[in-house]
Amino acid sequence: MARAALGLRPVPGLGLVLVLLGGLLLRGGAAAGAGAGAGAGAGAEPCQAPRQWEGRTVTYEHGTGRNTRAAVSYDGPNQRLRVLEERKALIPCKKFFEYIFLYKDAVMFQIEQVTKLCSKVALTEPWDPYDIPANSTYEDQYYIGGPGDKIMVQEWSDRKPARKLESWVGVYTVTDCYPVQETYTKNYSVTTSTRFFDLQLGIADPSVFTPPSTCQTAQLRKMEGEC
Amino acid sequence: MARAALGLRPVPGLGLVLVLLGGLLLRGGAAAGAGAGAGAGAGAEPCQAPRQWEGRTVTYEHGTGRNTRAAVSYDGPNQRLRVLEERKALIPCKKFFEYIFLYKDAVMFQIEQVTKLCSKVALTEPWDPYDIPANSTYEDQYYIGGPGDKIMVQEWSDRKPARKLESWVGVYTVTDCYPVQETYTKNYSVTTSTRFFDLQLGIADPSVFTPPSTCQTAQLRKMEGEC
Repeated sequence: MARAALGLRPVPGLGLVLVLLGGLLLRGGAAAGAGAGAGAGAGAEPCQAPRQWEGRTVTYEHGTGRNTRAAVSYDGPNQRLRVLEERKALIPCKKFFEYIFLYKDAVMFQIEQVTKLCSKVALTEPWDPYDIPANSTYEDQYYIGGPGDKIMVQEWSDRKPARKLESWVGVYTVTDCYPVQETYTKNYSVTTSTRFFDLQLGIADPSVFTPPSTCQTAQLRKMEGEC
Repeated sequence: MARAALGLRPVPGLGLVLVLLGGLLLRGGAAAGAGAGAGAGAGAEPCQAPRQWEGRTVTYEHGTGRNTRAAVSYDGPNQRLRVLEERKALIPCKKFFEYIFLYKDAVMFQIEQVTKLCSKVALTEPWDPYDIPANSTYEDQYYIGGPGDKIMVQEWSDRKPARKLESWVGVYTVTDCYPVQETYTKNYSVTTSTRFFDLQLGIADPSVFTPPSTCQTAQLRKMEGEC
């Protein structure tokens, strides 16, 4: 859930990086800490999403038609996010990056995976946890999967009765409130969708949030992923 | 899986209807009947999707930012599809339709839900089942949900090694091969995503494929959903 789809407008020093990471980052000013009890049924309050987890994501950026796969470590209490792009497809010239977002320090490190070249970029948006804000609109509840092998999820959005369309839709499991999918719309056309999977509770190795030594002399502009 | 994203280019007599229904219809020339055994693991052949089911869908059309919800009856052997739009949001002036696609007759009926006004439109694309074509590319396998409440799915696409991007991505459950999500890209920018849920095997009431009596004197042009 996001107040503003940050990556969909120009931000000095970031630009494409944020666009590609789409729903991972574009999360401004949600009602952190104001969420309600877990396991809520239809019509009730949003559930409280887990505050520390690791998993994988695919972010689909509709403007470019590109899927970006990543391994993600999410640390809500410390307002940190680590995104390791997966070298899935063999794309000529494509660079793959690791991103470490430290929102309490308002800084993001971008590390090229092969050379370890590091950029340090200021974060201008506030931390926004992966959760369902307390003022969200309940949209739907349903099962994903087939008979005998399914999960129940709820869908929430930022739609208001007076507005025709929503700009954020979040799908979360009813059991334990894990994120399944988040979709952002802006100007009715530019959107990102992030799907979440292989989620595990907690952070196995907190050192993933520590930038490598090459970041001590980091350049201050972001690197491009293309050649 | 689709050979061509039909709804993303103009088709006389259809147009917006097909765009809105997106991934439901845009399915041309898949390798029906050539699929392999069920429950295949990573690297193996695509599973064989169920041939008759009912459920619900949300189709997200990225060009307009619109979500279309529908109840769907899918009849593979008889090449029929029935789509009943759900009157979810109260949108001023918005009309809701029922669609009955009879591919063996190459005809589609569009029925306005309140007035029962009926249009009969020729179908120009061949039937394409909801399945994973045998020549698809295996992309990934993962769990959706959280620990203790998850389903395993596989992701397939029409990506070829020499091509940079795919135009179709399908996510299906490993158990029983039910569709979870299908995403289409065209020209790197115009896309639809359809998510599937509350799926049940079989067709409870085959009469849903019979057009109402108002279709005996149907008009031959499609109706617009807006005012």
